[in-house]
Amino acid sequence: MNHLSNLQFLLFDWLQVEKLADRARFADLDRASITAVLENCERIAAREFAPHNRQVDVEEPQFDGERVQLPAVTAQAVRAYIESGMLAASQDAALGGLQLPRVAELAGNSFFAMASIAMFAYPMLTVGNANLLLAHGTAKQKDVFARAELEGRWFGTMCLSEPQAGSSLSDVATRAQPDGEDGEQDPLGPRYRLRGNKMWISAGEHELSENIVHLVLAKVPDAQGRLPAGVKGLSLFIVPKYLVTAEGVRTSERNDVALAGLNHKLGYRGTTNTLLNFGEGRYRPRGSEGAIGYRVGAEGEGLKCMFHMMNEARVGVGMGAAMLGMAGYQASLDYAQQRRQGRPLQSGGKDVGAQQVPIIQHADIKRMLLAQKAYCEGALALLLYCAQLIDRQHSGNAEEAQRVGLLLEMLTPVAKSWPSQWCLEANSLAIQVHGGYGYTRDFPVEQHWRDNRLNMIHEGTHGIQGLDLLGRKVTMAKGQGLRLLSVEMEATIRKAGGRGQLREEAADLSAALQQLLSVTQSAWAGGRPEETLANATLYLQGFGHLVLAWIWLDVALSALAQADETMREGKLAACRYFFRYELPKIEAWLQPVARRDDTCLQVHEAHL
Amino acid sequence: MNHLSNLQFLLFDWLQVEKLADRARFADLDRASITAVLENCERIAAREFAPHNRQVDVEEPQFDGERVQLPAVTAQAVRAYIESGMLAASQDAALGGLQLPRVAELAGNSFFAMASIAMFAYPMLTVGNANLLLAHGTAKQKDVFARAELEGRWFGTMCLSEPQAGSSLSDVATRAQPDGEDGEQDPLGPRYRLRGNKMWISAGEHELSENIVHLVLAKVPDAQGRLPAGVKGLSLFIVPKYLVTAEGVRTSERNDVALAGLNHKLGYRGTTNTLLNFGEGRYRPRGSEGAIGYRVGAEGEGLKCMFHMMNEARVGVGMGAAMLGMAGYQASLDYAQQRRQGRPLQSGGKDVGAQQVPIIQHADIKRMLLAQKAYCEGALALLLYCAQLIDRQHSGNAEEAQRVGLLLEMLTPVAKSWPSQWCLEANSLAIQVHGGYGYTRDFPVEQHWRDNRLNMIHEGTHGIQGLDLLGRKVTMAKGQGLRLLSVEMEATIRKAGGRGQLREEAADLSAALQQLLSVTQSAWAGGRPEETLANATLYLQGFGHLVLAWIWLDVALSALAQADETMREGKLAACRYFFRYELPKIEAWLQPVARRDDTCLQVHEAHL
Repeated sequence: MNHLSNLQFLLFDWLQVEKLADRARFADLDRASITAVLENCERIAAREFAPHNRQVDVEEPQFDGERVQLPAVTAQAVRAYIESGMLAASQDAALGGLQLPRVAELAGNSFFAMASIAMFAYPMLTVGNANLLLAHGTAKQKDVFARAELEGRWFGTMCLSEPQAGSSLSDVATRAQPDGEDGEQDPLGPRYRLRGNKMWISAGEHELSENIVHLVLAKVPDAQGRLPAGVKGLSLFIVPKYLVTAEGVRTSERNDVALAGLNHKLGYRGTTNTLLNFGEGRYRPRGSEGAIGYRVGAEGEGLKCMFHMMNEARVGVGMGAAMLGMAGYQASLDYAQQRRQGRPLQSGGKDVGAQQVPIIQHADIKRMLLAQKAYCEGALALLLYCAQLIDRQHSGNAEEAQRVGLLLEMLTPVAKSWPSQWCLEANSLAIQVHGGYGYTRDFPVEQHWRDNRLNMIHEGTHGIQGLDLLGRKVTMAKGQGLRLLSVEMEATIRKAGGRGQLREEAADLSAALQQLLSVTQSAWAGGRPEETLANATLYLQGFGHLVLAWIWLDVALSALAQADETMREGKLAACRYFFRYELPKIEAWLQPVARRDDTCLQVHEAHL
Repeated sequence: MNHLSNLQFLLFDWLQVEKLADRARFADLDRASITAVLENCERIAAREFAPHNRQVDVEEPQFDGERVQLPAVTAQAVRAYIESGMLAASQDAALGGLQLPRVAELAGNSFFAMASIAMFAYPMLTVGNANLLLAHGTAKQKDVFARAELEGRWFGTMCLSEPQAGSSLSDVATRAQPDGEDGEQDPLGPRYRLRGNKMWISAGEHELSENIVHLVLAKVPDAQGRLPAGVKGLSLFIVPKYLVTAEGVRTSERNDVALAGLNHKLGYRGTTNTLLNFGEGRYRPRGSEGAIGYRVGAEGEGLKCMFHMMNEARVGVGMGAAMLGMAGYQASLDYAQQRRQGRPLQSGGKDVGAQQVPIIQHADIKRMLLAQKAYCEGALALLLYCAQLIDRQHSGNAEEAQRVGLLLEMLTPVAKSWPSQWCLEANSLAIQVHGGYGYTRDFPVEQHWRDNRLNMIHEGTHGIQGLDLLGRKVTMAKGQGLRLLSVEMEATIRKAGGRGQLREEAADLSAALQQLLSVTQSAWAGGRPEETLANATLYLQGFGHLVLAWIWLDVALSALAQADETMREGKLAACRYFFRYELPKIEAWLQPVARRDDTCLQVHEAHL
């Protein structure tokens, strides 16, 4: 199925996003305007991104000691993205934006992610960076840095990890010391000098924009020069690659930020990934070493500022994963329709004299395509749902914002991890459908698989997502998030229970939900969190499959009313597949969680 | 755990391979001689293979129009392999062999597969080729071709697939026409001229050996020039790259075999993979075009000859997959012991002031290591078990050969597919343990993952293995294979049921076996094979996990008696993990098989 048609079905028929027009912020919203955005994105992605996706994989970024060289197509593609108007699409009209809901922004961006995730990363990171500044920066910081980013003049990064501190942010050791007497009064924000090394910084160096705005987590030492322990000592700083005047003009003076090296990756090769040295003295901005940075938000609130954006960033990662999956699904569907091989098995055996048939006629190929459809279209639906929650959170009254916020907190670990795992599996199935051809670089599916493998690692590993879900989200607000999610699921179950065609699925979902609630209780019944959380990743998997089953049932309810047969029957088949072949897997994942199985916790390191 | 120690435990304590010395062929066998072979392999693999595995990935084979260029380390490594004596290790003493059992040969080879699967492929293919000739060739063919291969002078290939016929061998279109009046009397075998294109030919062109012996499946046209339909028309031919005299001397005359191109792959890059044109007229051997080939076996019996070697070839693929998994397991275990990050969760929370700990102390890291151990050491055990079946089949009396042959037939689809799927998953977990570092090419685990992805595709895809298992193996000999396997499993269950520590696992295995038997019946109860086989891949998965649970329980029984604590407790922990976290998965796979779910079979192509 065409991606545009699928998006239109999900946005208009399933989510009914036009209803957002009831809210002042989205008053101008209608189908036609959203469709125009989608069509525009589809066209630009097809012209400027998709044709060059292999090239940016093959021609990896090179560092010549001075500059990072990228293929020219990257600059062309990001330029086209900027001209599309998508950078500021969801921003206030006052900032040059279209006040497009996030759900429509995500739908539009999905075309670029599907066409070339590695090139799309540059604008995606820039918008995330700008959104953080818009939420936590001073008026000046917004006007200088966020504005330049939303206009596409400067690009942005997020600098969290360090070589010795990946998932463990409390061990960040980059220091930020107040800079000079006048530092506190700097119009761009309280000024510091930063020293430290940041690892895994995507888009950390390139020549695509006239400046790069690094957002850096660092710690301010106490009077004795000691860094505060834990994450509470983290503060957030704007560290531009080139210094900037108070009027927002980029100068030619380099800040003390130096590229220490490029990481050479398995996939996602079109995005530079860097080790950056801050304040090692390579440059001497304003006459002395140390990277100049301007604090965002209060001292010690760095992680809080970051967390504010984390749900959105994680939904963004999930979207990338889903669209890599979708790209592989489309490619393998196309291949299966063209490629002739073998003959269908029939009750009377095979007629070896007959013509070979397109492989899509073989049951096992259909299975692999249907699984991809269930994984990728299901993931996309979940992500659109989450994006709409963000819209409702931002535009609703206090009660709605709180309620919808809790739901979003619950769903975020799944929105990030589930597509990362299952749309990667979809990419593997896409290779399998291609047979030997899929294993060659003459077809795109091996690249999708390599690219997608990143998504279980960055922006909080799979393990971290599991700990977040079982360790924090299900217990937060006295379990209110989980209760709210159950209420949503029960509403779907009720509706589906009344429709003959989906009654069986409704009953299965109801049973699975009850099982999950009971497992959650058992998991926490022992009083030893280390035992509970030893199986957090399995809980994440079980929970994720339950959420996707719910999403599929809800989507199927909308599909029933579709006049378009392909859309209706395709969605119903994928829903059926998910309930019959996927949902039963949760049993094996949840059992160990429920009994607080300590096999893994207890195994002695020396016995591994 | 050290791979050598593990092999010694599995060979001597678990399989008790010395008992093979009861048989005339293996009369000289003892622990010391096997251990010497293993240590020799370990040393050569560590010195000549492992250090160059990344290089052969980066410096892919290049075709300059005349020759295929490989990095010099490849020639050096295969030379060292030849000098190790492993090429002929399992052959008759009369052929210069050591009459080493296959099980010990596989154990020795596992070091090379773990060190560099891509370089090991050259000798592995050569031995497989020679074994086929020894089984089906004439005395002259053995003396000329097999001998040169076992001496490492000539290398071998298998040429089955064609661009239009991958899994569907009945569609092979390469033609073999009798060559001249004297063709039938050629001392090297009935002589033909072959014309056609062969795809995916590993080691199809290189300069590593003075000649290349292609074994080619082709069809002999009838008087009207028509090729017989189906696989029954296939015959097998020896097609050497350079012509050979009747005395076995390689001449400088090129046969009409031309490299049409190299395939550029996701992984396994150190092995050339080729499209070969036979008989297109690029060369004119003996003055006319057409590739000269010598028939092996009778006309129309080509596939039968191939099938004879298929079990062994598939066990070989499984071994490669298992050892790629093992390489990743070892690398991630090593990394997890060195890398410090985070602090263990304790009931009182975390002490952020404390030092970071090696990540192996985190429960989720232990889980990922234990899963890898369960997958890879379990797969290796299964493969050694299968290799021992081959030894018993070859050296036993007729009754034993028949019985053991049936068991081997049953287990082969699992021995090939299970490691291909689950040791690939192990490679993914190895990446995950490494975090971002695992996603870079500075660590070996991403290459293992890429290399291993091939194994679900070649030598019969995953789907083909499922069809073979459910469509052929469980029904062959009126179900006798399945009954024999059940008897083996029940023996293990009985033994384990009497040991307190493994009683629970014994009961679980017993229940799972009963479930599988019942599902097998239900699957075939409908009378419509297309419905039964629509879920054959899921049956393969369920069956595979059952087999591995059995293997683990049997291995654990031996481990109980081990004085070495690391060995004993490590194996018991992996067994426990497998039964608690893996075996329960079979439920979700087998349900659709049992009810002959037709969701995938029935979905309309247009709705995908």
